[in-house]
Parts: sequence; C-alpha cells; structure tokens
Amino acid sequence: MSQKIQIDQNRLFAELTKLSSFTHVEPSPDGTAVTRVVFTPDDLEARAWLRGIAEAEGFTVRVDPVGNTFFRMEGTDPSLPAVATGSHADAIPHAGMYDGTVGVIGGLEAMRALKQAGIRPKRAIETILFTSEEPTRFGIGCLGSRLMSGTLSPEKADALKDADDRTLAEVRTAAGFAGDLADVKLAPGHYSAFVELHIEQGPLLERAGEQIGIVTSIAAPASYRFQIQGLGGHAGALLMPDRRDALCAASELILSIERHALTIGTIDSVATVGTCDVYPGAVNSVPSRVALMLDIRDTDPARRDAIMAAVRADIMEIQTKRGVAISESLVNADAPATSSAAIVDALEAICLREGMLYRKMVSRAYHDTLFMASVAPVSMIFIPCRGGVSHRPDEFSTAEDIARGTLLLAEVLAKVGSD
Amino acid sequence: MSQKIQIDQNRLFAELTKLSSFTHVEPSPDGTAVTRVVFTPDDLEARAWLRGIAEAEGFTVRVDPVGNTFFRMEGTDPSLPAVATGSHADAIPHAGMYDGTVGVIGGLEAMRALKQAGIRPKRAIETILFTSEEPTRFGIGCLGSRLMSGTLSPEKADALKDADDRTLAEVRTAAGFAGDLADVKLAPGHYSAFVELHIEQGPLLERAGEQIGIVTSIAAPASYRFQIQGLGGHAGALLMPDRRDALCAASELILSIERHALTIGTIDSVATVGTCDVYPGAVNSVPSRVALMLDIRDTDPARRDAIMAAVRADIMEIQTKRGVAISESLVNADAPATSSAAIVDALEAICLREGMLYRKMVSRAYHDTLFMASVAPVSMIFIPCRGGVSHRPDEFSTAEDIARGTLLLAEVLAKVGSD
Repeated sequence: MSQKIQIDQNRLFAELTKLSSFTHVEPSPDGTAVTRVVFTPDDLEARAWLRGIAEAEGFTVRVDPVGNTFFRMEGTDPSLPAVATGSHADAIPHAGMYDGTVGVIGGLEAMRALKQAGIRPKRAIETILFTSEEPTRFGIGCLGSRLMSGTLSPEKADALKDADDRTLAEVRTAAGFAGDLADVKLAPGHYSAFVELHIEQGPLLERAGEQIGIVTSIAAPASYRFQIQGLGGHAGALLMPDRRDALCAASELILSIERHALTIGTIDSVATVGTCDVYPGAVNSVPSRVALMLDIRDTDPARRDAIMAAVRADIMEIQTKRGVAISESLVNADAPATSSAAIVDALEAICLREGMLYRKMVSRAYHDTLFMASVAPVSMIFIPCRGGVSHRPDEFSTAEDIARGTLLLAEVLAKVGSD
Repeated sequence: MSQKIQIDQNRLFAELTKLSSFTHVEPSPDGTAVTRVVFTPDDLEARAWLRGIAEAEGFTVRVDPVGNTFFRMEGTDPSLPAVATGSHADAIPHAGMYDGTVGVIGGLEAMRALKQAGIRPKRAIETILFTSEEPTRFGIGCLGSRLMSGTLSPEKADALKDADDRTLAEVRTAAGFAGDLADVKLAPGHYSAFVELHIEQGPLLERAGEQIGIVTSIAAPASYRFQIQGLGGHAGALLMPDRRDALCAASELILSIERHALTIGTIDSVATVGTCDVYPGAVNSVPSRVALMLDIRDTDPARRDAIMAAVRADIMEIQTKRGVAISESLVNADAPATSSAAIVDALEAICLREGMLYRKMVSRAYHDTLFMASVAPVSMIFIPCRGGVSHRPDEFSTAEDIARGTLLLAEVLAKVGSD
C-alpha cells in the first residue's frame, strides 16, 4: 500500500548545485555563471552524471539520435502510452543554475518520490532530458523537441551550422549521437500527457506572493534577422550631411521595435534586439553595415504580427530618410500552444487540496512544451524566481519553492498516469 | 644646372600598386581590401620594400625605437635643419590603397625627382614613414608622431596593449625596434618645415572640380568610450515595462550624438559611433551592458565641447528615464593645428604658377601633421579622392592627381629647402 509522496528537498537542491558545476568557466563580470552549450564536454559530462542518477534508481534509459534522453519508470500496464515530464540542461553563456535544470532534476526526483511512496501508476512515467533548448550553438532553440514533434525536418536540422561552420550532423556524431534524425519524431499518441516543471523567468508569482503558476498557454515566439546596409567611410572626413550611417539607422530600428511592442502590445508582448554586429567596427570608421537579431513573442500571433507590421512601416521611412537598405529575414516563427484543460484542472485540484497558492498564467518564455503540445496534451508548472531574473548568474529560486513544484509534479504525474 | 622637375607618374602608380600587395588578406564582402596593421608581417615586409627603394636612390636611412623611418637626401649645408615630408603605410582592416601610402611613395618620388632634376637645396630633405598612424592595434592613432612631438610619454606608450594583451614594448621589440622611446622625441627646431601629401578623404575637391587642397588647419579630434549598464534577463520573460535595456539606451545615445553634431556643429564638425559591443549578445537575452566608442572632430574645440555638453544633458535624461547607468571616459583629445602661413603662401604661389586648380581648406581627418605641428611649421597637400571615400576598399585617386600632388610637393620642398 502506498504512503504520502515525500520530496527530498535537500537531495534535490544538492543535485541542482552539483549540476551547476558542469560548466565552461569563463571570466564573468557578473560573478559565478553557468555556461553549458550543447555537445560541449560540459554538456556531455552533465548528461553522463544525470544518467548515473537514473540508473542508480533502476530507471531504464533511451537516447535518440539527437541526444534527447528518456529516463523511464515502468507502469503496471506496459501496453498504455506513457506520461512524461522533463526539461533541458543546457545553458546560454553566463547564465544561471535553475533554468531547465529544475525540470530535469525535479522530474527524476518526482519519479523517485513515487517509487519511494510505493505508487506505481498503470502508465509508465518518463523524464525527458531535451537536447539544445537554448539556441546558443545552432541558432535555433528547442532542437530536440522540434524534431520529436516533427516541427523541424531531419534534413534541415542536420544541416544547421555552428559558429565554427560545423554541421549538427558532424557535431552530434562526434559527440556520440549517431543514427537517422528521422527516428527522433514521436508517433501520434506516444505520450498521453506531458507536464514540464520550470522557473517562471518572470516576476509575477514573486510579486503576488504566490507559490505555483499553472500554465494555460505559451506565447508564440519568432525571431528575425535585420541587415542594415549603409555607406562606410572615414570618421573624420565623411561629412555629416553626406552620411548613410548604418548604426544610426539601426538605432532608429531598435527604438521603433521597442516603441511598438510597448504601444501595440500588451503585458503578454515582448520584443528584444539581443545582438548588434557593426562592420567594420573601428572607432574611426563610419559603420557601413549592421546586423541585428530580434526576438519577439506574444500569446497572440496576430498581435505579434501587428507589431511587426508597424515596425516595417518605420523601416520604409528609415530607408528613405537615411538612404540605407534594410533587409529582413524570418529565422523562425512558431504558433502558440494551449494547455490541456484536463491537465490544468488536475493541477488546480492538487493545488487546492495541498493548500498551494497558485495562479493560472501564460508563459512568455520559450519551452520544449511548446513543441510537445503538438504531439501530446500538455501543461507546465511554474515556480517563483527572485526578481523574475533568469539567463543571468544571479537567477535564483528557493529550495522550498523547487520542492513544492516537484511535489505538485509528482502528484499530477501519478494522477494522469492513472487515467 | 637644374632642369624642370619631372614626376614619373607610371613608376609612382606602379609602386603604390605594389605596396598594396603587402596586406593581410581576409574575406571582405567589399571586394579587394588592404589590411596592414602595425608590426604585423605585412607591415614589416612593406617597410623593408620601401627601405629598398630609398637605398637604391642612395638616400640614407634612420630608424627610431618606435619604428619611425627617415629617408634622407643631404643638402648643401648639413649644418641647417632639414625639411621633411612623409605619411604612414599602415591600413585599418578592409581599407584601401591610397590613405597614407600616397604621402610615403609621393615623398620618395619627390626626392627622386629633385635629384633627377639636379636640384639640391641647401637643407636636407627627409621623407618620414610614420609608425601606426591608425589606432587599429593599440587604440590610439599617430603613435609615431605623438612620440616625436612629445605629446605621448614614452612610459605610457610602451604600456599600451593590443587585443592580445601584448604591450607596445613587447611588440616593437619582437618586431626588431629596440631602444628607449624617449629617444624618439625630436629636439625643437629639428625640422624647419614639414609638409604631408595625402588624399582628401572627403568629397569637396572632386565636387568642385579642383585638383589641390592646401590645408590651413586640422580639426581637433577626440574619442570617448561610453559604457551603458542596464538590466539583463530572459528575452521572453522580462516584461517590457520592467526593462532597463542597455541597447535601447545606447540607441538613444547614438541618435543624440548624431543630432547634436548636425544641429550645434557646422560642416567642420563630425561625430561617429564606430563600435557597439553588446553583452551578453544572445538573441534571447535582454542586453545588460553596451560599450560604445565615439570619434568626434571639429576645427573649433569649443564647438566640439558644446556638442559633448548637449550629449551629456541627454545622457542625464536617458539614465533617469531608463534606469540605466552611463559612464563616459575620454580616450584622447587633441588640440587643432594651424598651418604655417609661409608654407601655405609657398604652396599657393606654386599652384598659381603651375596652373593647378586649388582651394584652401581644413582637414577633418586625423594626420601625423597634427602632431608635427607642435615641433615644426607645417601644412598639407590634399588631392581629390573619388566620392570622398576612404577607409574602404573602393578608395581611389587618379594617377594624374597623385602625380600633380607629388609635383607640388617636390616644388614646395625645393622652395622651403632653400629658405
């Protein structure tokens, strides 16, 4: 007979801390930072260590050709589709120790806690370690879940190149992940449910003093590349009235994007220019060319498109006024995801029963759940993070909040695993 | 007895073309480009080749501890201070083949032409190859002439570091230029005159259909470094109203600089933000920090300061409005230089006699003459360059214009060499 589910908060936090030690250490003005880029030695060591934890518990392990790793606890009826949880363990340069990792360690801890409590649902439960949720190396995020959901073609994926001009095919093979990427795609109905545990990466829960966020939908992210071609020249000799300065034009574009995201958008709209590459990039040369990357997200794709339309109108003006040429290319655009009402209801029921302070909310951040939503009913569990900060070394969530989210995850996996 | 001075236009152009072959070849989207950074193998090979030309003519060669090289043709009265010309042969990345080089090859050709014509003034004539007029490697321009004029202290100079963190002391010694930098400084009255031949690097002569620019003053250049410290975070999750985006703040600063240079400044004022470094520089991270380099020049330092004052007022606003911290540091600021009336008159008289179409003008670009002005009476000869373009691979001047400028240089050296 089964007892109450117990989360080992100390072990959970100790493992998160240990996981943060698998990092490419770089000088960071922001203090200790985690940098773990997909298929680097740091990433491979972290994967091996996680596998060790799963195997110690007797969970079976499957690794697919892109490196997505599945830790499985069998159910009583192997004929039924499994339920799954999971997240990612890769980290952008100078990031923190909670983004993604909480959902991986939390998933394993939830499975351990169920086992410990003698709870064995009829459906198997899997914790998935997704490959390259961060776009750092190959320029596109959620590589693993895009392939699992068929959103990205195996050919396109294998042809992706990193900054050293090495293809994903080369890099994954060198890292020991061989095989045909076509085998990564999941059959329809492969999972009966998918629930991801993650830090909010926003300030709302902390501000409201709430403990849990139940995600009802995930914003639709898109990224664009802008190239501004102007006229270069000597910084001393090219007269101001004759200038077609690509960086001044880029500055107007950056401010136009910010302005329209604030005015046309709502609190669910965010737009960010995260990179600005200037050519030739010399103090005494007028910039002749600038490349910008824009990340824009909204729970409503139509509103996202309205912001882009307003930006494009400004681009026409900037081109005419400044005599520059501005080209735009869509890097990727995804549809928003809506959570399964059944899973949201189950999460809500558990929160009420366990006395967890919760709110239903949208996710503005990009998660593997966005893609899993196209192959399974999904939802997400958010926990507070200090100041809404993430992708920074000072990213922080309390051990209590992490344990509480993990308990909710274990309870909901037991519930949907028995449906 | 002496004949008319003859410039060998074909040899001159052939030598300029040969000099452009000493380049660090890199992929350049702008086509063929010259990149010759001080003390790289390309620079050292170019120096050796130039030395060969001078020695073949029997000119004596002196090299100082920072690598400034002096090609000398003796006069009839060795007791008198010499007259000098010269320029630089280094080139910023992806630059052209005329900036600086015209004044070096032109100086040697002028000396050869005088020798050929049997003209031997009482004063010796020297062509100076200045070290590192471009700031590319050590972040400060006119290294050689700053040291010759005592504008830069030997200690400060030797401590300058390149991007690989190597000091000038290390790099110059490794390149074969040893000795105490204090020996670079010239004694007062060392030269009785200095005249530099250079492409205009501006559009005025070509637009007016004029052949020669006689420089009456050189603009006062200054460079500043701005660091904008904002608040980083996840591009999807950090809400727009909560942002303190360092790149948006930098964009306002860039446009403020441009606006004030255009409104407060005159045609003699130029301001350029040539570099923009974004941290962390990831598509899905809000920029937390941006560093900008500003190059600002004016023939009137007071007007330059007025532009900076207006920019600083905007900085206060941007800081308050956006909750960012903007720090400013002066990298260097130099006083403008005024040409010697006697040399300007001599140049004008020759232009009138030879029927050269000329104008008196200011130089907005930075030249070694700016520093030579503090140790000798100076002026400069400008020749037209196509579209006013320079610091670009498509920088271009005609062989006729180069030869005409060189003839004027030879004539004026003969004149001031006999005063």
